[in-house]
Amino acid sequence: MSYTEVEFTFEPGGYADNATPLIRNCWYVAGFASEISRDIISRRFLGVDVALYRTLAGEPVAVRNRCPHRSFPLAKGRLDGDVLVCGYHGMQFDPSGRCVNMPSMPIVPANANVRTFPVAERGPIVWIWMGNPDLADESLIPNTEWLADPAWKSVRGTFPLNSDYVSMHENLLDQTHFPFLHPGTVGTLEYARSKLKVRQEGETVIIDRSLKNSPPPGIYGIPTNLMHKNVDRLSEARFASPAMHVAFAQIIDHEPAEGRPSVYRFNITHLVTPESNGRIHYWWFNTRNFDLDNSKTDDFLYEASTKAYLEDVDALEAILNAVQTDVEPQFDLNFAPDKPGLMMRKVLHQRAAAEAGYQFA
Amino acid sequence: MSYTEVEFTFEPGGYADNATPLIRNCWYVAGFASEISRDIISRRFLGVDVALYRTLAGEPVAVRNRCPHRSFPLAKGRLDGDVLVCGYHGMQFDPSGRCVNMPSMPIVPANANVRTFPVAERGPIVWIWMGNPDLADESLIPNTEWLADPAWKSVRGTFPLNSDYVSMHENLLDQTHFPFLHPGTVGTLEYARSKLKVRQEGETVIIDRSLKNSPPPGIYGIPTNLMHKNVDRLSEARFASPAMHVAFAQIIDHEPAEGRPSVYRFNITHLVTPESNGRIHYWWFNTRNFDLDNSKTDDFLYEASTKAYLEDVDALEAILNAVQTDVEPQFDLNFAPDKPGLMMRKVLHQRAAAEAGYQFA
Amino acid sequence: MSYTEVEFTFEPGGYADNATPLIRNCWYVAGFASEISRDIISRRFLGVDVALYRTLAGEPVAVRNRCPHRSFPLAKGRLDGDVLVCGYHGMQFDPSGRCVNMPSMPIVPANANVRTFPVAERGPIVWIWMGNPDLADESLIPNTEWLADPAWKSVRGTFPLNSDYVSMHENLLDQTHFPFLHPGTVGTLEYARSKLKVRQEGETVIIDRSLKNSPPPGIYGIPTNLMHKNVDRLSEARFASPAMHVAFAQIIDHEPAEGRPSVYRFNITHLVTPESNGRIHYWWFNTRNFDLDNSKTDDFLYEASTKAYLEDVDALEAILNAVQTDVEPQFDLNFAPDKPGLMMRKVLHQRAAAEAGYQFA
Repeated sequence: MSYTEVEFTFEPGGYADNATPLIRNCWYVAGFASEISRDIISRRFLGVDVALYRTLAGEPVAVRNRCPHRSFPLAKGRLDGDVLVCGYHGMQFDPSGRCVNMPSMPIVPANANVRTFPVAERGPIVWIWMGNPDLADESLIPNTEWLADPAWKSVRGTFPLNSDYVSMHENLLDQTHFPFLHPGTVGTLEYARSKLKVRQEGETVIIDRSLKNSPPPGIYGIPTNLMHKNVDRLSEARFASPAMHVAFAQIIDHEPAEGRPSVYRFNITHLVTPESNGRIHYWWFNTRNFDLDNSKTDDFLYEASTKAYLEDVDALEAILNAVQTDVEPQFDLNFAPDKPGLMMRKVLHQRAAAEAGYQFA
Repeated sequence: MSYTEVEFTFEPGGYADNATPLIRNCWYVAGFASEISRDIISRRFLGVDVALYRTLAGEPVAVRNRCPHRSFPLAKGRLDGDVLVCGYHGMQFDPSGRCVNMPSMPIVPANANVRTFPVAERGPIVWIWMGNPDLADESLIPNTEWLADPAWKSVRGTFPLNSDYVSMHENLLDQTHFPFLHPGTVGTLEYARSKLKVRQEGETVIIDRSLKNSPPPGIYGIPTNLMHKNVDRLSEARFASPAMHVAFAQIIDHEPAEGRPSVYRFNITHLVTPESNGRIHYWWFNTRNFDLDNSKTDDFLYEASTKAYLEDVDALEAILNAVQTDVEPQFDLNFAPDKPGLMMRKVLHQRAAAEAGYQFA
Repeated sequence: MSYTEVEFTFEPGGYADNATPLIRNCWYVAGFASEISRDIISRRFLGVDVALYRTLAGEPVAVRNRCPHRSFPLAKGRLDGDVLVCGYHGMQFDPSGRCVNMPSMPIVPANANVRTFPVAERGPIVWIWMGNPDLADESLIPNTEWLADPAWKSVRGTFPLNSDYVSMHENLLDQTHFPFLHPGTVGTLEYARSKLKVRQEGETVIIDRSLKNSPPPGIYGIPTNLMHKNVDRLSEARFASPAMHVAFAQIIDHEPAEGRPSVYRFNITHLVTPESNGRIHYWWFNTRNFDLDNSKTDDFLYEASTKAYLEDVDALEAILNAVQTDVEPQFDLNFAPDKPGLMMRKVLHQRAAAEAGYQFA
């Protein structure tokens, strides 16, 4: 099935859902920088298999994982210096995708090349551009400077989900599920009911929540050692791009113990790359500006984050399974707290429609 | 895939087969009464996922297993008294499907409700109506009074089959396969060749067989202790509804031993609910009017029935697999003993056509 | 899905690929003769399930593996002498497919027959004709006389592949992959670069390669004990039919040791029967004319062949998986060494088009 054959009808003012064609002109995450090495790996992004490796100089390379000759997966081949050698007939491709040697031919035909994809390394992340390469402007890569800043410390994880990026982003913009899906970690009922401000800047959807003088949830109260008292909790969560959601949280202790800060900051970075409309890659970072060298804090935040995100995985997979296997198509009743998610879905729908060539008056 | 999108062309006088749209306006079995409790379970009936539980007062409740908000499976939630609480955002639904609380909203929107299904408990069975609820007349529930009558004793079992209810009912109305598929239990060649009478009363297809002065098959001869002598064997088998087939068998011993009856009766109840066109739920009861307290008789009848029905499962699954995976479509040569099955398939076809709005002159 | 419903558009001068309708009017291999016995087995050929057994006299029989009554798989029945008894209702079919007894009927209806397929046994192979039986001319069976000739000795094996016969034949006609996919066994770089002659005789595509005074690859050098010296290597490889590829190899030692031959011959027979467009049965023979009684030579050739063919299996399955799961359809860049494969693919395309009734001017 070619992706050019997908039929989908866009309508003015529509909302993206799990069936909406995936946005291609976007920097997505290809992997943690540490996942890409001299051992070739393959991953599927937006339906396209990609082989990933590094040159001898350490530059990441992303190349179509199908030899243009007979579709043999290039990731099953081997590296000879910076050259990727196909495992079937030995065709050799340089990091630009140009074929530089065909063992069975005296000269290399001019068309014997393989597609490559723009990549860019930023701190612990390698980004990839699967769309029109002429539009791959590196200034469009979302800011994640805190991930490489020595004043901050991160824990991180990754797992695949049988879900779609629309539902994932909607889940991330929706904090009213916290006390029900994550009762032991991020959820308190007071927070779910706290005042929500929503705004949109360009294609970025931003929500602000502020909860004063209230007990913190475990994920913030335990590493700050503030479970015994009331604090202020501020958070700004941003749908930054189809590939990224980021939450900036502050826990404010107005009467800090001696030697402890008054403001604790947490930046939570969620990175999503669709493999298809029904499966996504997911990478997350929980980054803090305090107790950088405390490995117990690392361990707690890794375990609490993993627990909460696996609860999201379980919910999102159950929902997509229900939608895909049920005789009735997707339906949604929308309520007031769904507003940020719907704003995001409108952005995704508009971008997908624009890529498909739709023009709405 | 919506079930409204299924295309199927009915023809006058046609016979249902595994591709015929499933009949919806019918009481089907949701489960043994003992399967439905305060622990919420989910089952798929006619392509629709249903969550099943009991109220504190013990009433069975059947509710759509998709939250109307974001399709989260309600069976993954929890009960709070009689209220079903969604595990994603905490929406609370009463047993009528009305949303009575939304934690993130000050008032409950009028449309925040979930579909429920009529259910009715009859002895050891909970029945469900998946069709038009206005037509859910409880007087249409088939009679199974012997299952709750203290003068009778039942053994029972349940398993799922990768088959279709048309083939299942055809198998149940066809006794000429007994000596071949069930040589060790219900089958004797004399019985397969005995005189068959077929009649139809409304939409009920009834076959009568009578075999005089012949050795009984093991399933009747062993529990009656009559394997050593000839008996009369009478049976009436009924296609009672798309959900039920029942067989009334009598073994008549004209010279009973002292203290033993002359007539032994067995009522065999088969209950079938399609999950889809290719998978069915199946519940069975083997009910007798003698030796009610004899646990060895219980054990024998349970084991012999299970053996025979698993032989049917194996055959029916092999047939559907052949039909579904083969390059050639379903074909059937029909012979005289197939008459009752064809009458039943005509009834199913007419009912399915009527539900689809077909009118034949 | 009926195979009459497959839509495929043939174009003049086209090349077969994995989507091309399978050629039906051809003798294919049903199995090693030793695989077909008094124990009924079932296999799928060209999408059609076939039951295979032998009569008491030892004749192989191939019969449609679906009872014409209710599609019960006949291979799940049993043999009563030469008669195949269906396991569902006991219908009995003689080796010609004629129903000779129906237990539940006084006489056998004239139409109660099952389709059979022409079969022919040749040495260690049973051939089957799945197409129009009127065209099943045994003189069309490819010659494999060396497999039954006492002057030759064979080792052999079989495995299924998730691949298509077009890619398999292309792999077999392509020797430039030897040093890359099979570096330890059949591949040397000198051979891949040696002069290739291609010719077509009718629908047979033939390639000749000759490499003088060069080190032999392990698969030929080790059993001949010639790894230490240069030899001449001649080979002729033939796409003999959609069902068979055969390679005739000679290793020539111009200065043979005392008591050793100057010419060592290997006939490699590859036999392919499509189960579907995406799965094939594969049987192979490695046959030699020297050291017939040396079991170490048997063992070496069996192990080296199995290793090399499993490397092909792995490559062919990876390619079909890439083509089938990727969002982009099959594409191929063709180069000079692909010429024999393209000639073969043109033959397959022409035959498939002719069977589908296409006539090109």
